[in-house]
Amino acid sequence: MKKKQGLGALKKLALRKDSRGALFEIMRSDWREFGGFGQTYITVCKPGWVKGWHFHKKQTDNFCVVKGKALVVLADIRSGKSAEYVLSEDAPALLTIPAGTLHGFECLSKKECRILNVPDRLYNYKKPDEYRIQLDDESVPYRKWRNRKGW
Amino acid sequence: MKKKQGLGALKKLALRKDSRGALFEIMRSDWREFGGFGQTYITVCKPGWVKGWHFHKKQTDNFCVVKGKALVVLADIRSGKSAEYVLSEDAPALLTIPAGTLHGFECLSKKECRILNVPDRLYNYKKPDEYRIQLDDESVPYRKWRNRKGW
Repeated sequence: MKKKQGLGALKKLALRKDSRGALFEIMRSDWREFGGFGQTYITVCKPGWVKGWHFHKKQTDNFCVVKGKALVVLADIRSGKSAEYVLSEDAPALLTIPAGTLHGFECLSKKECRILNVPDRLYNYKKPDEYRIQLDDESVPYRKWRNRKGW
Repeated sequence: MKKKQGLGALKKLALRKDSRGALFEIMRSDWREFGGFGQTYITVCKPGWVKGWHFHKKQTDNFCVVKGKALVVLADIRSGKSAEYVLSEDAPALLTIPAGTLHGFECLSKKECRILNVPDRLYNYKKPDEYRIQLDDESVPYRKWRNRKGW
Protein backbone atom coordinates (compact mmCIF):
# COMPACT_ATOMS: atom_id res chain seq x y z
CA MET A 1 0.00 0.00 0.00
CA LYS A 2 1.23 3.43 -0.90
CA LYS A 3 2.26 5.60 2.02
CA LYS A 4 0.10 8.67 2.52
CA GLN A 5 2.04 11.72 1.48
CA GLY A 6 0.60 14.48 3.64
CA LEU A 7 1.85 17.87 2.45
CA GLY A 8 4.80 16.40 0.57
CA ALA A 9 7.45 13.71 0.60
CA LEU A 10 11.22 14.10 0.76
CA LYS A 11 13.65 11.58 -0.70
CA LYS A 12 17.35 11.93 0.00
CA LEU A 13 19.36 11.42 -3.18
CA ALA A 14 22.55 9.33 -3.22
CA LEU A 15 25.61 11.49 -3.97
CA ARG A 16 28.32 9.40 -5.62
CA LYS A 17 31.65 11.17 -5.29
CA ASP A 18 34.99 10.44 -6.95
CA SER A 19 38.19 12.36 -7.68
CA ARG A 20 36.66 14.15 -10.67
CA GLY A 21 33.51 15.34 -8.94
CA ALA A 22 30.20 13.64 -8.25
CA LEU A 23 26.97 12.31 -9.73
CA PHE A 24 23.44 12.06 -8.41
CA GLU A 25 20.28 10.70 -9.94
CA ILE A 26 17.27 13.00 -9.48
CA MET A 27 14.38 11.01 -10.99
CA ARG A 28 14.22 7.60 -12.64
CA SER A 29 11.25 6.18 -14.52
CA ASP A 30 11.48 3.04 -12.36
CA TRP A 31 11.20 4.89 -9.03
CA ARG A 32 7.93 4.88 -7.16
CA GLU A 33 8.11 8.70 -7.06
CA PHE A 34 7.75 8.75 -10.85
CA GLY A 35 4.25 9.54 -12.05
CA GLY A 36 5.03 10.41 -15.68
CA PHE A 37 7.18 12.98 -17.44
CA GLY A 38 5.62 16.22 -18.55
CA GLN A 39 8.73 18.35 -18.83
CA THR A 40 11.67 19.65 -16.84
CA TYR A 41 12.68 23.23 -16.13
CA ILE A 42 14.81 25.36 -13.82
CA THR A 43 13.50 28.26 -11.77
CA VAL A 44 16.12 30.75 -10.57
CA CYS A 45 15.52 32.85 -7.44
CA LYS A 46 17.66 35.82 -6.38
CA PRO A 47 18.66 36.56 -2.78
CA GLY A 48 16.02 38.75 -1.12
CA TRP A 49 13.14 37.27 -3.06
CA VAL A 50 10.41 34.69 -2.50
CA LYS A 51 8.54 32.87 -5.25
CA GLY A 52 5.07 31.91 -4.06
CA TRP A 53 2.42 30.99 -3.24
CA HIS A 54 1.58 28.62 -6.08
CA PHE A 55 -0.51 25.51 -6.40
CA HIS A 56 -1.74 23.18 -9.12
CA LYS A 57 -5.05 21.34 -9.46
CA LYS A 58 -3.70 18.35 -11.37
CA GLN A 59 0.10 18.57 -11.50
CA THR A 60 2.56 16.95 -9.11
CA ASP A 61 5.87 18.80 -8.79
CA ASN A 62 9.25 17.21 -8.06
CA PHE A 63 11.74 19.79 -6.79
CA CYS A 64 15.50 19.41 -6.52
CA VAL A 65 17.82 22.27 -5.52
CA VAL A 66 20.71 22.05 -8.01
CA LYS A 67 22.53 25.31 -7.15
CA GLY A 68 22.76 27.24 -3.89
CA LYS A 69 20.38 26.85 -0.98
CA ALA A 70 16.64 27.38 -0.67
CA LEU A 71 13.87 27.23 1.88
CA VAL A 72 10.86 25.50 0.37
CA VAL A 73 7.59 25.77 2.31
CA LEU A 74 4.49 23.65 1.76
CA ALA A 75 1.16 24.67 3.28
CA ASP A 76 -2.46 23.65 3.41
CA ILE A 77 -5.20 26.16 4.22
CA ARG A 78 -7.87 23.67 5.28
CA SER A 79 -5.75 21.68 7.72
CA GLY A 80 -3.76 24.74 8.87
CA LYS A 81 -0.54 22.75 8.45
CA SER A 82 2.78 23.83 6.97
CA ALA A 83 6.19 22.22 6.49
CA GLU A 84 9.63 23.76 5.93
CA TYR A 85 12.45 22.15 3.95
CA VAL A 86 15.94 23.63 3.75
CA LEU A 87 17.45 22.18 0.58
CA SER A 88 20.97 22.66 -0.72
CA GLU A 89 23.15 21.70 -3.66
CA ASP A 90 25.48 19.85 -1.27
CA ALA A 91 22.89 17.39 0.01
CA PRO A 92 20.64 16.70 -2.97
CA ALA A 93 17.07 15.65 -2.27
CA LEU A 94 13.84 15.25 -4.21
CA LEU A 95 10.77 16.97 -2.77
CA THR A 96 7.50 15.68 -4.20
CA ILE A 97 4.63 18.20 -3.95
CA PRO A 98 1.21 16.75 -4.70
CA ALA A 99 -1.56 18.65 -6.51
CA GLY A 100 -3.46 20.95 -4.18
CA THR A 101 -0.54 21.70 -1.85
CA LEU A 102 0.48 25.37 -1.69
CA HIS A 103 4.18 25.90 -2.17
CA GLY A 104 6.66 28.73 -2.19
CA PHE A 105 10.39 29.14 -1.78
CA GLU A 106 13.05 31.70 -1.02
CA CYS A 107 16.75 31.89 -1.73
CA LEU A 108 18.93 31.29 1.35
CA SER A 109 22.30 31.47 -0.44
CA LYS A 110 24.29 34.65 -1.02
CA LYS A 111 24.01 34.16 -4.75
CA GLU A 112 20.99 32.88 -6.64
CA CYS A 113 19.50 29.46 -5.99
CA ARG A 114 18.25 27.17 -8.74
CA ILE A 115 15.50 24.62 -8.36
CA LEU A 116 14.99 21.92 -10.98
CA ASN A 117 11.40 20.78 -11.31
CA VAL A 118 10.37 17.52 -13.00
CA PRO A 119 6.57 17.79 -13.03
CA ASP A 120 4.39 14.93 -14.24
CA ARG A 121 2.54 17.20 -16.69
CA LEU A 122 3.35 19.69 -19.43
CA TYR A 123 2.90 23.38 -18.74
CA ASN A 124 0.07 24.47 -21.03
CA TYR A 125 0.90 28.02 -22.14
CA LYS A 126 -2.71 28.85 -23.10
CA LYS A 127 -4.41 27.23 -20.13
CA PRO A 128 -1.86 26.72 -17.36
CA ASP A 129 -2.68 24.55 -14.35
CA GLU A 130 -1.04 27.17 -12.14
CA TYR A 131 -2.80 29.21 -9.47
CA ARG A 132 -1.39 31.95 -7.26
CA ILE A 133 -2.14 33.27 -3.80
CA GLN A 134 -0.51 36.45 -2.52
CA LEU A 135 2.50 35.88 -0.32
CA ASP A 136 0.94 37.80 2.60
CA ASP A 137 -2.52 36.24 2.28
CA GLU A 138 -3.71 35.74 5.86
CA SER A 139 -5.52 32.50 5.14
CA VAL A 140 -2.20 30.72 4.54
CA PRO A 141 -0.86 29.18 7.78
CA TYR A 142 2.74 30.36 7.31
CA ARG A 143 4.34 33.76 7.80
CA LYS A 144 7.99 33.14 8.60
CA TRP A 145 9.59 34.14 5.31
CA ARG A 146 12.81 36.04 5.88
CA ASN A 147 12.15 38.25 2.89
CA ARG A 148 9.02 40.22 2.16
CA LYS A 149 9.48 40.66 -1.55
CA GLY A 150 7.73 38.02 -3.57
CA TRP A 151 4.94 37.00 -5.92
CA MET B 1 11.66 15.07 -42.87
CA LYS B 2 13.88 15.05 -39.84
CA LYS B 3 17.08 17.03 -40.12
CA LYS B 4 20.24 14.93 -39.96
CA GLN B 5 21.97 15.53 -36.67
CA GLY B 6 25.63 14.91 -37.43
CA LEU B 7 27.65 14.73 -34.21
CA GLY B 8 25.02 16.48 -32.13
CA ALA B 9 22.42 19.23 -32.14
CA LEU B 10 22.29 22.39 -30.04
CA LYS B 11 19.07 24.14 -29.06
CA LYS B 12 19.22 27.52 -27.38
CA LEU B 13 16.81 27.64 -24.44
CA ALA B 14 14.61 30.69 -23.79
CA LEU B 15 15.57 32.43 -20.54
CA ARG B 16 12.57 34.25 -19.08
CA LYS B 17 13.77 36.86 -16.58
CA ASP B 18 11.80 38.91 -14.07
CA SER B 19 12.57 40.84 -10.88
CA ARG B 20 12.68 37.68 -8.77
CA GLY B 21 15.06 35.70 -11.00
CA ALA B 22 14.44 33.63 -14.11
CA LEU B 23 13.00 30.43 -15.54
CA PHE B 24 14.00 28.22 -18.44
CA GLU B 25 12.48 25.05 -19.82
CA ILE B 26 15.07 22.34 -20.53
CA MET B 27 13.02 19.54 -22.10
CA ARG B 28 9.31 19.20 -22.83
CA SER B 29 7.54 16.01 -23.88
CA ASP B 30 6.02 17.92 -26.83
CA TRP B 31 9.39 19.06 -28.25
CA ARG B 32 10.85 17.32 -31.25
CA GLU B 33 14.06 16.78 -29.25
CA PHE B 34 12.12 14.52 -26.88
CA GLY B 35 12.63 10.82 -27.54
CA GLY B 36 11.31 9.40 -24.26
CA PHE B 37 12.20 9.81 -20.60
CA GLY B 38 14.54 7.31 -19.00
CA GLN B 39 15.72 9.36 -16.07
CA THR B 40 17.46 12.59 -15.15
CA TYR B 41 20.69 13.12 -13.24
CA ILE B 42 23.41 15.68 -12.56
CA THR B 43 27.09 15.11 -13.12
CA VAL B 44 29.44 17.43 -11.23
CA CYS B 45 32.95 18.14 -12.54
CA LYS B 46 35.70 19.90 -10.58
CA PRO B 47 38.10 22.46 -12.08
CA GLY B 48 41.19 20.68 -13.45
CA TRP B 49 39.31 17.56 -14.47
CA VAL B 50 37.86 16.09 -17.63
CA LYS B 51 35.12 13.45 -17.72
CA GLY B 52 35.45 11.36 -20.87
CA TRP B 53 35.46 9.74 -23.31
CA HIS B 54 32.10 8.03 -23.10
CA PHE B 55 29.61 6.72 -25.59
CA HIS B 56 26.40 4.73 -25.66
CA LYS B 57 25.16 2.16 -28.13
CA LYS B 58 21.45 2.85 -27.69
CA GLN B 59 21.04 5.91 -25.47
CA THR B 60 20.63 9.52 -26.59
CA ASP B 61 21.86 12.09 -24.07
CA ASN B 62 20.46 15.58 -23.58
CA PHE B 63 22.95 17.83 -21.75
CA CYS B 64 22.25 21.18 -20.13
CA VAL B 65 24.84 23.07 -18.07
CA VAL B 66 22.92 24.25 -15.00
CA LYS B 67 25.84 25.58 -12.91
CA GLY B 68 29.16 27.10 -13.95
CA LYS B 69 30.71 26.70 -17.37
CA ALA B 70 31.85 23.62 -19.31
CA LEU B 71 33.47 22.66 -22.57
CA VAL B 72 31.63 19.70 -24.07
CA VAL B 73 33.36 17.93 -26.96
CA LEU B 74 31.73 15.47 -29.36
CA ALA B 75 33.86 13.29 -31.61
CA ASP B 76 33.59 10.50 -34.15
CA ILE B 77 36.50 8.18 -34.85
CA ARG B 78 35.34 6.97 -38.27
CA SER B 79 34.71 10.38 -39.83
CA GLY B 80 37.58 12.04 -37.94
CA LYS B 81 35.25 14.90 -36.96
CA SER B 82 34.92 16.70 -33.65
CA ALA B 83 32.82 19.61 -32.35
CA GLU B 84 33.34 21.89 -29.34
CA TYR B 85 30.53 23.52 -27.36
CA VAL B 86 31.17 26.04 -24.58
CA LEU B 87 28.06 25.94 -22.41
CA SER B 88 27.28 28.11 -19.42
CA GLU B 89 24.60 28.58 -16.78
CA ASP B 90 24.01 32.13 -18.08
CA ALA B 91 23.01 31.10 -21.60
CA PRO B 92 21.15 27.81 -21.17
CA ALA B 93 21.15 25.40 -24.08
CA LEU B 94 20.24 21.78 -24.72
CA LEU B 95 22.87 19.64 -26.44
CA THR B 96 21.49 16.42 -27.89
CA ILE B 97 24.12 13.68 -28.28
CA PRO B 98 22.99 10.70 -30.35
CA ALA B 99 23.99 7.10 -29.63
CA GLY B 100 27.42 6.28 -31.01
CA THR B 101 28.89 9.78 -30.63
CA LEU B 102 31.90 10.01 -28.30
CA HIS B 103 31.53 12.75 -25.71
CA GLY B 104 33.57 14.27 -22.93
CA PHE B 105 33.60 17.51 -20.98
CA GLU B 106 35.77 19.61 -18.75
CA CYS B 107 35.04 22.31 -16.21
CA LEU B 108 35.87 25.83 -17.41
CA SER B 109 34.58 27.69 -14.33
CA LYS B 110 36.66 28.44 -11.23
CA LYS B 111 34.29 26.36 -9.13
CA GLU B 112 32.65 23.11 -10.16
CA CYS B 113 30.33 22.86 -13.16
CA ARG B 114 27.15 20.83 -13.17
CA ILE B 115 25.60 19.23 -16.21
CA LEU B 116 22.02 17.97 -16.13
CA ASN B 117 21.39 15.02 -18.41
CA VAL B 118 17.93 13.90 -19.51
CA PRO B 119 18.67 10.66 -21.38
CA ASP B 120 15.93 8.76 -23.21
CA ARG B 121 16.79 5.53 -21.39
CA LEU B 122 17.29 4.31 -17.84
CA TYR B 123 20.80 3.59 -16.62
CA ASN B 124 20.88 -0.17 -16.04
CA TYR B 125 23.13 -0.72 -13.02
CA LYS B 126 23.82 -4.38 -13.90
CA LYS B 127 24.28 -3.95 -17.62
CA PRO B 128 24.99 -0.30 -18.37
CA ASP B 129 24.90 0.99 -21.93
CA GLU B 130 28.03 3.00 -21.20
CA TYR B 131 31.39 2.53 -22.86
CA ARG B 132 34.65 4.31 -22.19
CA ILE B 133 37.72 5.22 -24.19
CA GLN B 134 40.81 6.63 -22.54
CA LEU B 135 41.11 10.40 -22.70
CA ASP B 136 44.48 10.22 -24.49
CA ASP B 137 43.49 7.48 -26.93
CA GLU B 138 45.14 8.45 -30.21
CA SER B 139 42.31 7.18 -32.37
CA VAL B 140 40.05 9.98 -31.11
CA PRO B 141 40.31 13.06 -33.37
CA TYR B 142 40.54 15.60 -30.53
CA ARG B 143 43.41 16.54 -28.23
CA LYS B 144 42.80 20.10 -27.14
CA TRP B 145 41.68 19.54 -23.56
CA ARG B 146 43.11 22.17 -21.24
CA ASN B 147 43.44 19.63 -18.47
CA ARG B 148 45.15 16.28 -18.61
CA LYS B 149 43.45 14.65 -15.67
CA GLY B 150 40.44 12.65 -16.61
CA TRP B 151 38.72 9.30 -17.06
